Amino acid sequence: MTQEQQKMLAGHHAAQFVQDGMVVGIGSGSTIAHVIQALGERVAQENLKIVGVATSEKTRRNAAQLGIPMYNVDDVDKIDLTIDGADQIADDFSAIKGGGAALLWEKIVAFNSLENIWVVDASKRVDKLNQYLPVEVIPYGANQLFKRFAAEGFQPTWRLDQNGNPVRTDSANFLIDLHLPEIEQPRALGDELIKMVGVVEHGLFTDVVDRVVIGQPDNTVQILEVPHP
Amino acid sequence: MTQEQQKMLAGHHAAQFVQDGMVVGIGSGSTIAHVIQALGERVAQENLKIVGVATSEKTRRNAAQLGIPMYNVDDVDKIDLTIDGADQIADDFSAIKGGGAALLWEKIVAFNSLENIWVVDASKRVDKLNQYLPVEVIPYGANQLFKRFAAEGFQPTWRLDQNGNPVRTDSANFLIDLHLPEIEQPRALGDELIKMVGVVEHGLFTDVVDRVVIGQPDNTVQILEVPHP
Repeated sequence: MTQEQQKMLAGHHAAQFVQDGMVVGIGSGSTIAHVIQALGERVAQENLKIVGVATSEKTRRNAAQLGIPMYNVDDVDKIDLTIDGADQIADDFSAIKGGGAALLWEKIVAFNSLENIWVVDASKRVDKLNQYLPVEVIPYGANQLFKRFAAEGFQPTWRLDQNGNPVRTDSANFLIDLHLPEIEQPRALGDELIKMVGVVEHGLFTDVVDRVVIGQPDNTVQILEVPHP
Repeated sequence: MTQEQQKMLAGHHAAQFVQDGMVVGIGSGSTIAHVIQALGERVAQENLKIVGVATSEKTRRNAAQLGIPMYNVDDVDKIDLTIDGADQIADDFSAIKGGGAALLWEKIVAFNSLENIWVVDASKRVDKLNQYLPVEVIPYGANQLFKRFAAEGFQPTWRLDQNGNPVRTDSANFLIDLHLPEIEQPRALGDELIKMVGVVEHGLFTDVVDRVVIGQPDNTVQILEVPHP
Protein backbone atom coordinates (compact mmCIF):
# COMPACT_ATOMS: atom_id res chain seq x y z
CA MET A 1 0.00 0.00 0.00
CA THR A 2 1.16 3.50 -0.69
CA GLN A 3 1.54 6.00 2.13
CA GLU A 4 -1.57 7.79 0.88
CA GLN A 5 -3.58 4.57 1.03
CA GLN A 6 -2.36 3.97 4.59
CA LYS A 7 -3.54 7.46 5.53
CA MET A 8 -6.94 6.86 3.96
CA LEU A 9 -7.36 3.50 5.66
CA ALA A 10 -6.41 4.90 9.07
CA GLY A 11 -8.51 8.03 8.56
CA HIS A 12 -11.66 6.07 7.72
CA HIS A 13 -11.06 3.78 10.65
CA ALA A 14 -10.56 6.66 13.09
CA ALA A 15 -13.82 8.28 11.96
CA GLN A 16 -15.65 5.21 13.33
CA PHE A 17 -14.81 6.29 16.89
CA VAL A 18 -17.14 9.26 16.49
CA GLN A 19 -20.57 8.67 18.02
CA ASP A 20 -23.91 10.35 17.55
CA GLY A 21 -24.26 13.59 19.52
CA MET A 22 -20.56 14.19 19.99
CA VAL A 23 -18.71 17.48 19.77
CA VAL A 24 -15.67 16.52 17.69
CA GLY A 25 -12.40 18.40 17.41
CA ILE A 26 -11.16 17.98 13.84
CA GLY A 27 -7.45 18.26 13.15
CA SER A 28 -5.53 19.46 10.13
CA GLY A 29 -3.35 17.92 7.48
CA SER A 30 -3.38 15.34 4.73
CA THR A 31 -4.37 12.38 6.92
CA ILE A 32 -7.18 14.32 8.53
CA ALA A 33 -8.53 15.19 5.09
CA HIS A 34 -9.56 11.51 4.93
CA VAL A 35 -11.17 11.72 8.38
CA ILE A 36 -13.19 14.73 7.27
CA GLN A 37 -14.24 12.89 4.12
CA ALA A 38 -15.33 9.86 6.14
CA LEU A 39 -17.22 11.99 8.67
CA GLY A 40 -18.97 13.80 5.85
CA GLU A 41 -20.08 10.44 4.44
CA ARG A 42 -21.36 9.30 7.84
CA VAL A 43 -23.30 12.55 8.27
CA ALA A 44 -24.87 12.11 4.84
CA GLN A 45 -25.47 8.33 4.93
CA GLU A 46 -26.09 7.52 8.62
CA ASN A 47 -27.65 10.86 9.52
CA LEU A 48 -24.90 11.16 12.15
CA LYS A 49 -25.53 14.24 14.32
CA ILE A 50 -22.27 15.85 15.34
CA VAL A 51 -20.80 19.28 15.86
CA GLY A 52 -17.25 19.93 14.67
CA VAL A 53 -14.61 22.22 16.16
CA ALA A 54 -11.81 23.13 13.77
CA THR A 55 -8.09 23.36 14.40
CA SER A 56 -7.52 25.55 11.36
CA GLU A 57 -9.42 27.79 8.99
CA LYS A 58 -8.79 25.27 6.21
CA THR A 59 -10.32 22.42 8.20
CA ARG A 60 -13.32 24.56 9.09
CA ARG A 61 -14.01 25.30 5.42
CA ASN A 62 -13.50 21.74 4.21
CA ALA A 63 -15.67 20.18 6.91
CA ALA A 64 -18.44 22.75 6.50
CA GLN A 65 -18.55 22.02 2.76
CA LEU A 66 -19.26 18.37 3.57
CA GLY A 67 -22.24 19.29 5.73
CA ILE A 68 -20.58 19.07 9.16
CA PRO A 69 -21.81 21.96 11.34
CA MET A 70 -18.66 23.73 12.49
CA TYR A 71 -18.42 25.71 15.72
CA ASN A 72 -15.76 27.88 17.26
CA VAL A 73 -13.96 26.24 20.19
CA ASP A 74 -15.42 28.98 22.39
CA ASP A 75 -19.00 28.25 21.33
CA VAL A 76 -19.14 24.72 22.72
CA ASP A 77 -19.37 23.62 26.31
CA LYS A 78 -16.76 20.90 25.90
CA ILE A 79 -15.18 18.77 23.18
CA ASP A 80 -15.83 15.05 23.53
CA LEU A 81 -13.22 13.72 21.15
CA THR A 82 -10.54 15.25 18.93
CA ILE A 83 -9.04 13.42 15.97
CA ASP A 84 -5.81 14.86 14.66
CA GLY A 85 -2.66 13.82 12.85
CA ALA A 86 0.98 14.05 13.92
CA ASP A 87 4.27 14.59 12.11
CA GLN A 88 6.11 12.12 14.33
CA ILE A 89 5.05 9.94 17.26
CA ALA A 90 7.72 8.51 19.56
CA ASP A 91 7.62 5.32 21.62
CA ASP A 92 6.72 7.36 24.72
CA PHE A 93 3.72 8.83 22.81
CA SER A 94 5.18 12.30 22.69
CA ALA A 95 4.78 13.86 19.26
CA ILE A 96 5.86 16.68 17.01
CA LYS A 97 3.12 18.59 15.22
CA GLY A 98 3.03 21.82 13.28
CA GLY A 99 4.29 20.88 9.83
CA GLY A 100 1.02 22.27 8.48
CA ALA A 101 1.40 25.47 10.55
CA ALA A 102 -1.68 24.75 12.70
CA LEU A 103 0.01 23.66 15.93
CA LEU A 104 -1.39 26.44 18.14
CA TRP A 105 -5.06 25.87 17.37
CA GLU A 106 -4.43 22.10 17.35
CA LYS A 107 -3.01 22.32 20.85
CA ILE A 108 -5.81 24.59 22.06
CA VAL A 109 -8.45 22.15 20.79
CA ALA A 110 -6.57 19.11 22.15
CA PHE A 111 -6.16 20.79 25.52
CA ASN A 112 -9.93 21.26 25.72
CA SER A 113 -10.87 17.73 24.64
CA LEU A 114 -11.92 14.91 26.91
CA GLU A 115 -10.25 12.41 24.58
CA ASN A 116 -7.62 12.68 21.84
CA ILE A 117 -7.00 10.27 18.97
CA TRP A 118 -4.08 10.64 16.58
CA VAL A 119 -4.18 9.10 13.11
CA VAL A 120 -1.01 8.46 11.14
CA ASP A 121 0.56 6.24 8.53
CA ALA A 122 3.27 3.87 9.70
CA SER A 123 6.12 6.13 8.59
CA LYS A 124 5.33 8.62 11.37
CA ARG A 125 6.33 6.23 14.16
CA VAL A 126 9.86 6.69 15.54
CA ASP A 127 11.80 5.56 18.59
CA LYS A 128 12.61 9.13 19.56
CA LEU A 129 11.51 12.42 18.01
CA ASN A 130 14.14 13.60 15.54
CA GLN A 131 12.56 15.86 12.93
CA TYR A 132 12.34 19.67 12.80
CA LEU A 133 10.37 21.22 15.62
CA PRO A 134 7.99 24.12 14.75
CA VAL A 135 7.71 26.99 17.22
CA GLU A 136 5.03 29.68 16.88
CA VAL A 137 6.33 33.12 17.85
CA ILE A 138 5.06 36.68 18.23
CA PRO A 139 6.24 38.74 15.23
CA TYR A 140 7.42 41.62 17.47
CA GLY A 141 10.92 40.59 18.53
CA ALA A 142 10.97 37.46 16.37
CA ASN A 143 14.40 38.27 14.92
CA GLN A 144 15.84 38.58 18.41
CA LEU A 145 14.27 35.27 19.38
CA PHE A 146 15.69 33.67 16.23
CA LYS A 147 19.18 34.86 17.25
CA ARG A 148 18.61 33.45 20.72
CA PHE A 149 17.58 30.07 19.31
CA ALA A 150 20.73 30.08 17.17
CA ALA A 151 22.88 30.91 20.21
CA GLU A 152 21.29 27.96 22.05
CA GLY A 153 22.35 25.65 19.21
CA PHE A 154 18.78 25.02 18.05
CA GLN A 155 19.64 25.67 14.37
CA PRO A 156 16.54 27.72 13.60
CA THR A 157 15.08 28.37 10.15
CA TRP A 158 12.16 30.61 9.21
CA ARG A 159 9.03 28.98 7.84
CA LEU A 160 8.52 30.79 4.52
CA ASP A 161 5.70 30.76 2.00
CA GLN A 162 6.13 30.22 -1.73
CA ASN A 163 7.04 33.88 -2.20
CA GLY A 164 9.77 33.76 0.42
CA ASN A 165 7.75 35.70 3.01
CA PRO A 166 7.29 34.48 6.58
CA VAL A 167 4.28 32.19 6.92
CA ARG A 168 1.52 33.70 9.05
CA THR A 169 -0.44 31.27 11.21
CA ASP A 170 -4.21 31.49 11.73
CA SER A 171 -3.38 33.64 14.77
CA ALA A 172 -1.12 35.86 12.60
CA ASN A 173 2.13 34.73 14.22
CA PHE A 174 5.41 33.53 12.64
CA LEU A 175 6.85 30.02 12.69
CA ILE A 176 10.47 29.17 13.38
CA ASP A 177 11.56 25.56 12.80
CA LEU A 178 14.27 24.18 15.09
CA HIS A 179 16.61 21.52 13.74
CA LEU A 180 17.66 19.45 16.69
CA PRO A 181 19.25 16.07 16.95
CA GLU A 182 17.18 13.35 18.63
CA ILE A 183 14.99 14.86 21.36
CA GLU A 184 15.76 12.85 24.49
CA GLN A 185 13.52 14.76 26.91
CA PRO A 186 10.56 16.34 25.11
CA ARG A 187 8.86 17.58 28.32
CA ALA A 188 11.98 19.40 29.53
CA LEU A 189 12.59 20.92 26.11
CA GLY A 190 8.96 22.03 25.90
CA ASP A 191 9.21 23.67 29.32
CA GLU A 192 12.37 25.50 28.27
CA LEU A 193 10.83 26.75 25.03
CA ILE A 194 7.50 27.90 26.46
CA LYS A 195 9.27 30.06 29.05
CA MET A 196 11.17 31.99 26.38
CA VAL A 197 9.52 35.39 25.96
CA GLY A 198 7.91 35.68 22.53
CA VAL A 199 7.22 31.94 22.17
CA VAL A 200 3.47 31.40 21.85
CA GLU A 201 3.53 27.61 21.54
CA HIS A 202 5.77 24.81 20.31
CA GLY A 203 5.10 21.64 18.38
CA LEU A 204 5.91 19.19 21.18
CA PHE A 205 2.74 17.43 22.31
CA THR A 206 3.31 15.42 25.48
CA ASP A 207 0.70 13.82 27.75
CA VAL A 208 -2.03 14.55 25.20
CA VAL A 209 -2.99 11.45 23.25
CA ASP A 210 -5.25 8.62 24.44
CA ARG A 211 -5.31 6.40 21.35
CA VAL A 212 -3.22 6.13 18.17
CA VAL A 213 -4.60 4.76 14.90
CA ILE A 214 -1.89 3.65 12.48
CA GLY A 215 -2.35 2.67 8.84
CA GLN A 216 0.13 -0.15 8.11
CA PRO A 217 1.80 -1.09 4.82
CA ASP A 218 0.19 -4.55 4.98
CA ASN A 219 -3.33 -3.11 4.64
CA THR A 220 -4.14 -3.40 8.35
CA VAL A 221 -4.87 -0.77 10.98
CA GLN A 222 -3.02 -0.91 14.27
CA ILE A 223 -4.60 0.71 17.31
CA LEU A 224 -2.53 1.61 20.33
CA GLU A 225 -4.19 2.49 23.62
CA VAL A 226 -1.98 4.90 25.56
CA PRO A 227 -1.47 3.94 29.19
CA HIS A 228 -2.12 6.82 31.59
CA PRO A 229 -0.36 6.79 34.93
CA MET B 1 3.85 66.06 46.62
CA THR B 2 1.08 64.57 44.57
CA GLN B 3 1.46 61.16 43.02
CA GLU B 4 1.78 62.80 39.61
CA GLN B 5 4.63 64.99 40.85
CA GLN B 6 6.37 61.93 42.25
CA LYS B 7 6.08 60.26 38.86
CA MET B 8 7.50 63.32 37.11
CA LEU B 9 10.39 63.62 39.55
CA ALA B 10 11.28 59.95 39.22
CA GLY B 11 10.82 59.99 35.45
CA HIS B 12 13.16 62.93 34.94
CA HIS B 13 15.70 61.34 37.24
CA ALA B 14 15.59 58.00 35.43
CA ALA B 15 16.15 59.72 32.09
CA GLN B 16 19.58 60.79 33.36
CA PHE B 17 20.79 57.19 33.23
CA VAL B 18 20.62 57.32 29.44
CA GLN B 19 23.97 57.97 27.81
CA ASP B 20 24.99 59.19 24.40
CA GLY B 21 24.95 56.44 21.76
CA MET B 22 22.65 54.11 23.64
CA VAL B 23 19.83 52.01 22.23
CA VAL B 24 17.07 52.63 24.78
CA GLY B 25 13.99 50.51 25.37
CA ILE B 26 11.16 52.88 26.31
CA GLY B 27 8.30 51.59 28.40
CA SER B 28 4.63 52.50 28.50
CA GLY B 29 2.30 54.22 30.94
CA SER B 30 1.81 57.47 32.81
CA THR B 31 5.19 57.48 34.58
CA ILE B 32 7.04 56.70 31.39
CA ALA B 33 5.31 59.64 29.71
CA HIS B 34 7.57 61.80 31.90
CA VAL B 35 10.64 59.79 30.90
CA ILE B 36 9.80 60.29 27.23
CA GLN B 37 9.33 64.03 27.84
CA ALA B 38 12.69 64.26 29.62
CA LEU B 39 14.47 62.26 26.90
CA GLY B 40 12.94 64.51 24.26
CA GLU B 41 14.32 67.54 26.09
CA ARG B 42 17.77 65.97 26.34
CA VAL B 43 17.75 65.16 22.61
CA ALA B 44 16.77 68.78 21.81
CA GLN B 45 18.96 70.58 24.35
CA GLU B 46 22.04 68.36 24.77
CA ASN B 47 22.05 66.95 21.26
CA LEU B 48 21.84 63.49 22.88
CA LYS B 49 22.14 60.80 20.21
CA ILE B 50 20.02 57.79 21.04
CA VAL B 51 17.84 55.24 19.34
CA GLY B 52 14.57 54.25 21.00
CA VAL B 53 12.80 50.88 20.94
CA ALA B 54 9.12 51.06 21.89
CA THR B 55 7.09 48.72 24.07
CA SER B 56 3.80 49.90 22.58
CA GLU B 57 2.46 51.68 19.54
CA LYS B 58 1.50 54.62 21.75
CA THR B 59 5.03 54.99 23.10
CA ARG B 60 6.45 54.79 19.59
CA ARG B 61 4.23 57.64 18.40
CA ASN B 62 4.82 59.87 21.44
CA ALA B 63 8.58 59.44 21.42
CA ALA B 64 8.86 59.95 17.67
CA GLN B 65 6.92 63.21 17.98
CA LEU B 66 9.57 64.46 20.41
CA GLY B 67 12.36 63.78 17.93
CA ILE B 68 13.57 60.44 19.30
CA PRO B 69 14.37 58.10 16.40
CA MET B 70 12.31 54.98 17.05
CA TYR B 71 13.25 51.52 15.82
CA ASN B 72 11.57 48.17 15.88
CA VAL B 73 13.05 45.73 18.41
CA ASP B 74 14.08 43.55 15.48
CA ASP B 75 15.98 46.35 13.74
CA VAL B 76 18.58 46.84 16.48
CA ASP B 77 21.51 44.62 17.35
CA LYS B 78 20.87 44.88 21.09
CA ILE B 79 19.17 47.16 23.61
CA ASP B 80 21.54 48.78 26.12
CA LEU B 81 19.01 49.97 28.68
CA THR B 82 15.26 49.80 29.07
CA ILE B 83 13.30 52.19 31.28
CA ASP B 84 9.80 51.07 32.12
CA GLY B 85 7.18 51.46 34.82
CA ALA B 86 5.48 48.84 36.98
CA ASP B 87 2.03 48.49 38.54
CA GLN B 88 3.44 46.95 41.73
CA ILE B 89 6.95 46.08 42.89
CA ALA B 90 7.38 43.67 45.79
CA ASP B 91 10.22 43.47 48.28
CA ASP B 92 11.79 40.63 46.29
CA PHE B 93 11.77 42.88 43.18
CA SER B 94 9.17 40.81 41.41
CA ALA B 95 6.55 43.01 39.77
CA ILE B 96 3.16 43.04 38.14
CA LYS B 97 2.84 44.88 34.84
CA GLY B 98 0.16 45.07 32.19
CA GLY B 99 -2.36 47.57 33.53
CA GLY B 100 -1.78 49.52 30.33
CA ALA B 101 -2.23 46.39 28.19
CA ALA B 102 1.38 46.47 26.93
CA LEU B 103 2.87 43.64 28.99
CA LEU B 104 3.83 41.40 26.07
CA TRP B 105 5.89 43.94 24.17
CA GLU B 106 7.26 45.26 27.48
CA LYS B 107 8.48 41.79 28.38
CA ILE B 108 9.93 41.20 24.91
CA VAL B 109 11.89 44.44 25.09
CA ALA B 110 13.00 43.82 28.70
CA PHE B 111 14.08 40.28 27.82
CA ASN B 112 16.33 41.70 25.09
CA SER B 113 17.88 44.48 27.19
CA LEU B 114 21.30 44.40 28.84
CA GLU B 115 19.95 46.49 31.73
CA ASN B 116 16.46 47.27 33.03
CA ILE B 117 15.38 50.24 35.16
CA TRP B 118 11.88 50.57 36.58
CA VAL B 119 10.47 53.95 37.54
CA VAL B 120 7.56 54.30 39.94
CA ASP B 121 5.97 56.53 42.53
CA ALA B 122 6.13 55.36 46.12
CA SER B 123 2.59 53.93 46.10
CA LYS B 124 3.69 51.08 43.80
CA ARG B 125 5.93 49.46 46.42
CA VAL B 126 4.38 46.56 48.34
CA ASP B 127 5.61 43.78 50.58
CA LYS B 128 4.05 41.14 48.37
CA LEU B 129 2.23 41.44 45.06
CA ASN B 130 -1.49 41.63 45.67
CA GLN B 131 -3.21 43.43 42.79
CA TYR B 132 -4.93 42.02 39.70
CA LEU B 133 -2.65 40.09 37.38
CA PRO B 134 -3.07 40.63 33.60
CA VAL B 135 -2.68 37.63 31.31
CA GLU B 136 -2.47 37.99 27.52
CA VAL B 137 -4.27 35.17 25.72
CA ILE B 138 -4.88 33.95 22.17
CA PRO B 139 -8.47 34.86 21.17
CA TYR B 140 -9.13 31.35 19.78
CA GLY B 141 -10.16 29.35 22.82
CA ALA B 142 -10.09 32.32 25.19
CA ASN B 143 -13.51 31.51 26.65
CA GLN B 144 -12.37 27.99 27.48
CA LEU B 145 -9.24 29.38 29.11
CA PHE B 146 -11.36 31.84 31.10
CA LYS B 147 -13.45 28.93 32.42
CA ARG B 148 -10.26 27.08 33.33
CA PHE B 149 -8.94 30.10 35.24
CA ALA B 150 -12.24 30.29 37.10
CA ALA B 151 -12.06 26.58 37.96
CA GLU B 152 -8.54 27.15 39.34
CA GLY B 153 -9.92 29.85 41.66
CA PHE B 154 -8.12 32.69 39.84
CA GLN B 155 -11.29 34.86 39.72
CA PRO B 156 -10.80 36.02 36.12
CA THR B 157 -12.37 39.10 34.52
CA TRP B 158 -12.17 40.23 30.91
CA ARG B 159 -10.33 43.46 30.14
CA LEU B 160 -12.92 45.50 28.24
CA ASP B 161 -12.75 48.78 26.39
CA GLN B 162 -15.11 51.70 26.91
CA ASN B 163 -17.68 50.09 24.62
CA GLY B 164 -17.66 46.83 26.54
CA ASN B 165 -15.68 44.95 23.89
CA PRO B 166 -12.58 42.90 24.71
CA VAL B 167 -9.42 45.00 24.61
CA ARG B 168 -7.06 43.99 21.81
CA THR B 169 -3.35 44.26 22.56
CA ASP B 170 -0.78 45.53 20.05
CA SER B 171 -0.38 41.86 19.07
CA ALA B 172 -4.19 41.56 18.66
CA ASN B 173 -4.68 39.25 21.64
CA PHE B 174 -7.15 39.46 24.55
CA LEU B 175 -6.39 40.25 28.20
CA ILE B 176 -7.82 38.39 31.18
CA ASP B 177 -7.18 39.88 34.62
CA LEU B 178 -6.80 37.43 37.51
CA HIS B 179 -7.85 38.52 40.98
CA LEU B 180 -5.72 36.61 43.40
CA PRO B 181 -4.96 37.11 47.04
CA GLU B 182 -1.35 37.92 47.91
CA ILE B 183 1.04 36.19 45.51
CA GLU B 184 3.46 34.26 47.69
CA GLN B 185 5.49 32.63 44.93
CA PRO B 186 5.47 34.70 41.76
CA ARG B 187 7.97 32.50 39.88
CA ALA B 188 5.94 29.34 40.50
CA LEU B 189 2.70 31.05 39.52
CA GLY B 190 4.32 32.42 36.37
CA ASP B 191 5.54 28.95 35.42
CA GLU B 192 2.06 27.52 35.94
CA LEU B 193 0.40 30.22 33.84
CA ILE B 194 2.84 30.17 30.93
CA LYS B 195 2.37 26.41 30.48
CA MET B 196 -1.39 26.78 30.06
CA VAL B 197 -2.21 26.42 26.37
CA GLY B 198 -3.48 29.72 24.95
CA VAL B 199 -1.56 31.90 27.40
CA VAL B 200 0.83 34.12 25.45
CA GLU B 201 2.37 35.96 28.41
CA HIS B 202 1.50 37.06 31.93
CA GLY B 203 2.17 40.22 33.88
CA LEU B 204 4.57 38.71 36.43
CA PHE B 205 8.08 40.07 35.85
CA THR B 206 10.64 38.20 37.93
CA ASP B 207 14.45 38.33 37.65
CA VAL B 208 14.20 41.26 35.26
CA VAL B 209 15.03 44.55 36.95
CA ASP B 210 18.51 45.88 37.79
CA ARG B 211 17.63 49.24 39.35
CA VAL B 212 14.45 50.84 40.71
CA VAL B 213 13.89 54.61 40.74
CA ILE B 214 11.19 55.71 43.20
CA GLY B 215 9.64 59.15 43.49
CA GLN B 216 8.96 59.76 47.21
CA PRO B 217 6.29 61.94 48.82
CA ASP B 218 9.02 64.05 50.50
CA ASN B 219 10.32 65.31 47.17
CA THR B 220 13.29 62.94 47.05
CA VAL B 221 14.17 60.13 44.70
CA GLN B 222 15.14 56.77 46.10
CA ILE B 223 17.29 54.46 43.99
CA LEU B 224 17.46 50.76 44.74
CA GLU B 225 20.16 48.61 43.18
CA VAL B 226 18.88 45.06 42.79
CA PRO B 227 21.28 42.40 44.02
CA HIS B 228 21.86 39.61 41.49
CA PRO B 229 22.89 36.25 42.82
